[in-house]
Amino acid sequence: MPNLRGNLLIGQSGGPTPVINASLAGVLSEAKKMPEIEKIYGMKNGIDGALKKEVYDLTQEPDDLVNRLLYTPASALGSCRHKLSKNEEYEQLLELFRANNIRYFVYIGGNDSMDTCHKISMLALERNYDMLVIGVPKTIDNDLPITDHCPGFGSAARFIALSTIESGRDLEAMNTFDDVAIYEIMGRHAGWLTAASALGKRCEEDAPHLVYLPERTFDEDQFLKDVKAVYDRLGYVYVAISEGVRDKEGEFIGTGDTATDAFGHKLISLGDGPAAYLAKLIMSKLGIKARVNRPGTIQRAMASLASECDVEEAFRVGKAAVKYFAEGISDVMVTLERLPLDEYKVEIGQVPLSKVANVEKFMPDNFINAEGNFVTKEFYDYCLPLIGDAVPDYARLTKKSIILK
Amino acid sequence: MPNLRGNLLIGQSGGPTPVINASLAGVLSEAKKMPEIEKIYGMKNGIDGALKKEVYDLTQEPDDLVNRLLYTPASALGSCRHKLSKNEEYEQLLELFRANNIRYFVYIGGNDSMDTCHKISMLALERNYDMLVIGVPKTIDNDLPITDHCPGFGSAARFIALSTIESGRDLEAMNTFDDVAIYEIMGRHAGWLTAASALGKRCEEDAPHLVYLPERTFDEDQFLKDVKAVYDRLGYVYVAISEGVRDKEGEFIGTGDTATDAFGHKLISLGDGPAAYLAKLIMSKLGIKARVNRPGTIQRAMASLASECDVEEAFRVGKAAVKYFAEGISDVMVTLERLPLDEYKVEIGQVPLSKVANVEKFMPDNFINAEGNFVTKEFYDYCLPLIGDAVPDYARLTKKSIILK
Repeated sequence: MPNLRGNLLIGQSGGPTPVINASLAGVLSEAKKMPEIEKIYGMKNGIDGALKKEVYDLTQEPDDLVNRLLYTPASALGSCRHKLSKNEEYEQLLELFRANNIRYFVYIGGNDSMDTCHKISMLALERNYDMLVIGVPKTIDNDLPITDHCPGFGSAARFIALSTIESGRDLEAMNTFDDVAIYEIMGRHAGWLTAASALGKRCEEDAPHLVYLPERTFDEDQFLKDVKAVYDRLGYVYVAISEGVRDKEGEFIGTGDTATDAFGHKLISLGDGPAAYLAKLIMSKLGIKARVNRPGTIQRAMASLASECDVEEAFRVGKAAVKYFAEGISDVMVTLERLPLDEYKVEIGQVPLSKVANVEKFMPDNFINAEGNFVTKEFYDYCLPLIGDAVPDYARLTKKSIILK
Repeated sequence: MPNLRGNLLIGQSGGPTPVINASLAGVLSEAKKMPEIEKIYGMKNGIDGALKKEVYDLTQEPDDLVNRLLYTPASALGSCRHKLSKNEEYEQLLELFRANNIRYFVYIGGNDSMDTCHKISMLALERNYDMLVIGVPKTIDNDLPITDHCPGFGSAARFIALSTIESGRDLEAMNTFDDVAIYEIMGRHAGWLTAASALGKRCEEDAPHLVYLPERTFDEDQFLKDVKAVYDRLGYVYVAISEGVRDKEGEFIGTGDTATDAFGHKLISLGDGPAAYLAKLIMSKLGIKARVNRPGTIQRAMASLASECDVEEAFRVGKAAVKYFAEGISDVMVTLERLPLDEYKVEIGQVPLSKVANVEKFMPDNFINAEGNFVTKEFYDYCLPLIGDAVPDYARLTKKSIILK
């Protein structure tokens, strides 16, 4: 099917990242060079917009848009969380493609979005509609399979690493006043981002001291023992915990008495959740003061601390999608393949969408310590290159305190 | 009293900032050059350490400490919250000074710390003990009087400005899913830091849309009307709110049913507070989905986003303290005086400690709009120079969306 002349439709989906616009920039810059592509349409709010036929004509935008998208956080086209299901939705989309000669389809997103992407690819195939479909990976959760890592993760990981080590110094300085800080980090099913909290740590005093991931069953008694042990040793404890930790019954921690409002929305995200619950537990069971850091969506938005490596890779996977179109490739997601070298280097690859749609990648056992409360050296080796510039080596006094006369 | 030969004792107090160590670096670099100063002792955890006679001998530290302190967050000496009150504490301090020939005393801190500093200055005077005492301003709250602004504020304000505009883009992109975000910002009595959330805003769509400060009485009904009005106009609402807003009875918002634990600690800081309370209110009264961003101590720790202007000024006020010692000046706090020029420029000044001890500076009326829900152009003029580099002008599509066939 190469040399198919027509229009390109692109969308961004799911939770934003600091670099999802860099992937859009990559697609734009390359698509403008491909003679077969006429118009470039951007779906307003992902597949939601496509269903309403509402798009931006990106061919009409100024040339400097590509460069400015490289440092602009969140999704410039708008995003959505929409799972294609109904038959009439497929008909609507096919009608849109036919009526507007859409021959190239790019969807930038995570697991669910790759499912959408694959469904659309299958639809076109079944109905004999010639269209090439490519998925571009994006998620701060880093939970897409096959690809070494996901664009968006490195930048969010950089913010988490820096904010942990820096607010850890705050806790350490204030340890005559506050004793425990609990940092609640995004990633409901996979612990990659929570694990990244450890990347700035250089010595025992540095934060975090304990890291709890959804890949391990959370046990309250063991947690309290862990906290007490660090407290007895250092006098303060910095805990990084995933929002998605669960007990042995599979229940999320801290949601026991969660109410829903009149509209059926769960109230869990509004001040409850594991960090607040566990801070209260520490105060009541151990009598130690505890506080909570819960930056919410700031974690996935901080473009001003983006990893340069991540920005560049997000741009590359966007460009690669269009290069695959030129080769007639379809129904794949672009991947990053790490080369087995001493120096960090990645090459672009591809994987059939069917192998990534709805599949989650969890942290492997060798990235988590035996106690299930910290990461291993193997995780550092894997993750450090992804956050770009090294975390600064902050000053510590080298001599111990003395007692004056 | 100039040319007093002896040792210098320095401490850091109160909540840390990203640049309080830069002020320590300023004192160190200048004190090393002053021949009358022999040893430089750093109190471990502020006045708490002085009372225990526990100090660091900073004269023994490597020379590169000064440079490394310039980018190191929180308080390298450790901090405390201790209000001097008991008579025996004064006796202990005087004994420490005499026994160790402490002739120079520097305390880096906020309102309470300046009170401590002034008390110590008075004590030495009353007891005829020759010692020069200088306060160095520090607080992310920016609430010290007389000085144009406080070192530490600019860097925290930079983080707040960037994280607001960037997570605002996230909300805007996700407005088919989330509708309201509430950012709870530090500053229990003064709204300076909450106001800084507006510094990156360039257009109506940019966050924040509403800003609530402790300087104005908070009215729930008016708040819901404000939120609804923005929601009807844009489809999403980003609210920045101070942790310290109060209703007309003077009660903090969202603490109605606050419990205390077995140790008497208030549980308010653990998931309740105004943002979570108001998010629930919006969901139940307006039926609009709302979420909370509450980064806690991260707000005062992010050295990796420090304002260069702030780092430089924090260093300068530290150096100025020692220069005042050389002139025999005592019982003052160093100040920053803004020159009435088009270009931003500050000079170093001084104010008697008695005029700043325990005095708080609130936002003036002309920095807050008539509705009490946003800041004015005058505030931008005052505050923008303090955060250093301008907030990036993030990309927006220039053309409106279209409906395809």
